[in-house]
Amino acid sequence: MQMTKNIDITKELKIIEKLIKSDISKEKTISRLYNHVFKSKGKKIRSRLNLIASSTSKNKDRLKLATVIELLHTATLVHDDVVDNASTRRGNKSVNSQWSNSHGVLIGDYIYSKAFGLMIEIGGDNIFAELADATNDISQGELIQLDAISDIKISLNKLKKISYFKTGRLFEASAKTGAMLAKTDKNSIESIGESAKNIGILFQIKDDLLDYSSSLKTGKQSFQDLREGKITYPFFYALQNSSQKEKKQLVSFLGNQNLNEKKALKLISELNGLKKTYQLAKRFHSKSVNAASTIKNQFVRQEMIELANIALNREK
Amino acid sequence: MQMTKNIDITKELKIIEKLIKSDISKEKTISRLYNHVFKSKGKKIRSRLNLIASSTSKNKDRLKLATVIELLHTATLVHDDVVDNASTRRGNKSVNSQWSNSHGVLIGDYIYSKAFGLMIEIGGDNIFAELADATNDISQGELIQLDAISDIKISLNKLKKISYFKTGRLFEASAKTGAMLAKTDKNSIESIGESAKNIGILFQIKDDLLDYSSSLKTGKQSFQDLREGKITYPFFYALQNSSQKEKKQLVSFLGNQNLNEKKALKLISELNGLKKTYQLAKRFHSKSVNAASTIKNQFVRQEMIELANIALNREK
Repeated sequence: MQMTKNIDITKELKIIEKLIKSDISKEKTISRLYNHVFKSKGKKIRSRLNLIASSTSKNKDRLKLATVIELLHTATLVHDDVVDNASTRRGNKSVNSQWSNSHGVLIGDYIYSKAFGLMIEIGGDNIFAELADATNDISQGELIQLDAISDIKISLNKLKKISYFKTGRLFEASAKTGAMLAKTDKNSIESIGESAKNIGILFQIKDDLLDYSSSLKTGKQSFQDLREGKITYPFFYALQNSSQKEKKQLVSFLGNQNLNEKKALKLISELNGLKKTYQLAKRFHSKSVNAASTIKNQFVRQEMIELANIALNREK
Repeated sequence: MQMTKNIDITKELKIIEKLIKSDISKEKTISRLYNHVFKSKGKKIRSRLNLIASSTSKNKDRLKLATVIELLHTATLVHDDVVDNASTRRGNKSVNSQWSNSHGVLIGDYIYSKAFGLMIEIGGDNIFAELADATNDISQGELIQLDAISDIKISLNKLKKISYFKTGRLFEASAKTGAMLAKTDKNSIESIGESAKNIGILFQIKDDLLDYSSSLKTGKQSFQDLREGKITYPFFYALQNSSQKEKKQLVSFLGNQNLNEKKALKLISELNGLKKTYQLAKRFHSKSVNAASTIKNQFVRQEMIELANIALNREK
C-alpha cells in the first residue's frame, strides 16, 4: 500500500495557501483582517505533518483537512498575540497591535469557527473529536502557563505539560487525524501520533531556546519570555543550578522591562541553562525518532524523521 | 405525534445547569475560572428555545444539545466582555475584570472547544454545521459592530444585520438544531427557525432599548452603548429626526465618558428614538408570532409565542 511515490507535499502546501484564502466573508471589515492574518505564510509544520500522515491515501479531503489544521493553528496564534500583548507576528504587525485586542479576539473566533465549519464537510467523528480535544488542550496549556508566570517553584513536569498542551498536542492531533483520514491501522496512528507529539514538544523547547538567541539569527525579538515573566527551560535549569545569590539575580530578570540582556544571557548560560535545555531537546528528538521508526510506511517514516531533525536543528 | 405533554422545560433547564458543571478540567486554574463564569445562571433563553424545539422527541441527547448551546452562548459572552471591556456580567465581575483580558480570551476558547467536543458525542452533521455557522456569524456580527462604532452614517439595514448576526443567528440555530434533533419535518424546522430568529432580533432591540432605561429597573448600568460609542436603534432614530443643531448634540454624547444621562435621554426621547425603537420591536414580535403560528405542534407553537411575548414585554 505504498501510494505515496508521487506526492509532493511542498506543492500541496502551496495549494493550501490558496484554499485558506478561498471563501472569505464578503464583509470588507472581516476580509481585511483575515487577509492581514494570512499575509505571511508561516512554517506550516502542522499541516505538513497532517499531509505526511494522510499521504498513504488518495482521499479527496486530504488538502481540506490540512487547511482546517492551518486555520485552527492560526486562530490560536491570533489569540496568543492578544494574551501575550505581542506586537508582531510572522514579520507583520499583530492584529491586536495594528487594530485592537477586540479585533484580535473576534477574528480569532471567526477563524476557529470557520475551521470547525470546514471540518464538518470532511466528516469523521474521530477526526472531529481529536481536533476539538486538541483545541481544548491548547487553551488549557495557555491558561496553565499564564498562571505560572513568575512562579519560580514551577516543576519540570509542569513545564513539559505546558509544552505538550500548548504545542505538542496539535502536532499530535495533526498527525493522528491525517492518519485517521487515510484509514491507517491503529498501531500506526499511535506511532505517528507519538512521534508528532514529541516533535511538537521538541519544537517548543527549541522555541524557548531560540528566545535566548540573538535576534539577528531568528528575526524575532529576543528574551521576550523573560520580559513577560515566563519561566521556560533555560531559566528553569539555571535556577536549579544557582546559589542563593545567583537565584536573586535570576529572579530580578523575570518580567523586567529594562532587562540587561547580556548579563542575563551570561548568567543563565554559565548556570548551564542553555546546555541543559539543548540536552532536553535531544531527548525529545530521540523519542520522536524512536516512535517514527515503528511506522510501517517508508515515506511517512522518513518524512517524520526528517521533520524531527529539522525541529532539532532549526536556527529560527 | 404530540409527545410533549409531560415535558417540563424549566425542570430540564435545572438539569442543564448540572450538566454544564460536570466534567470540568482537573486543572485548578481552569476549574476556578470556569466555575466563576457559570456562578450566575443567566436567562437560558437559547437553551430553552432548543428544548422547546426538540420537545416533540424523546431523543436521549436533547439535554446534551441544550447544554452545548448554553456553553457556546456563554463563550461568546466571555469574549464579548473582553471586546467591550465590560466590568460585570450577570451580576458578577467579568473574567477580564477579575483576572485579565488574557484569562477572558483563553477561558472563552476553552468553553468554545468544550462545546464543540460535546457536540460530536451527539452526532448529526446538519446540527454541527448549523452551530459552527452560527458561531461564525456571531463573530462577524461583533466585528461589523466594532467597525461601525461612532459611524453616524450607519443604515437601518446594517443595524438589523448586526442584531441578526449577534443575537438572532444563535436563537435561530438553537431552535433549528433542536428541531433537527427531533427529526421534525423540513417546513416546521424552517418555521421555528424563522420565529426564533425574529425573537432574537426582537430580544436585541429590547436590549438596546433597556440600555436607555433606569438601571434601577434593569440592574445593569445604563447608557453603556452610548458611552462605548455604539449606535443602536434609539440613537439611530433620534439622529434621523434631528435638526443640524440637535445632530451635533447627539454626536457629542457618543463615546462620552462624562455623559449627561438626563440630557441625553431627554433629547433622544423627544426625537422619538425610544418610541420608534419600540415600534420596531413590535414589528419583530409580529414576525415571530406569524412564523410561530405555522408550526404544527401545538405545544411548540404556544411556547414560541409565549417566548416572543416575554421578549417584547421584558423589563430587564
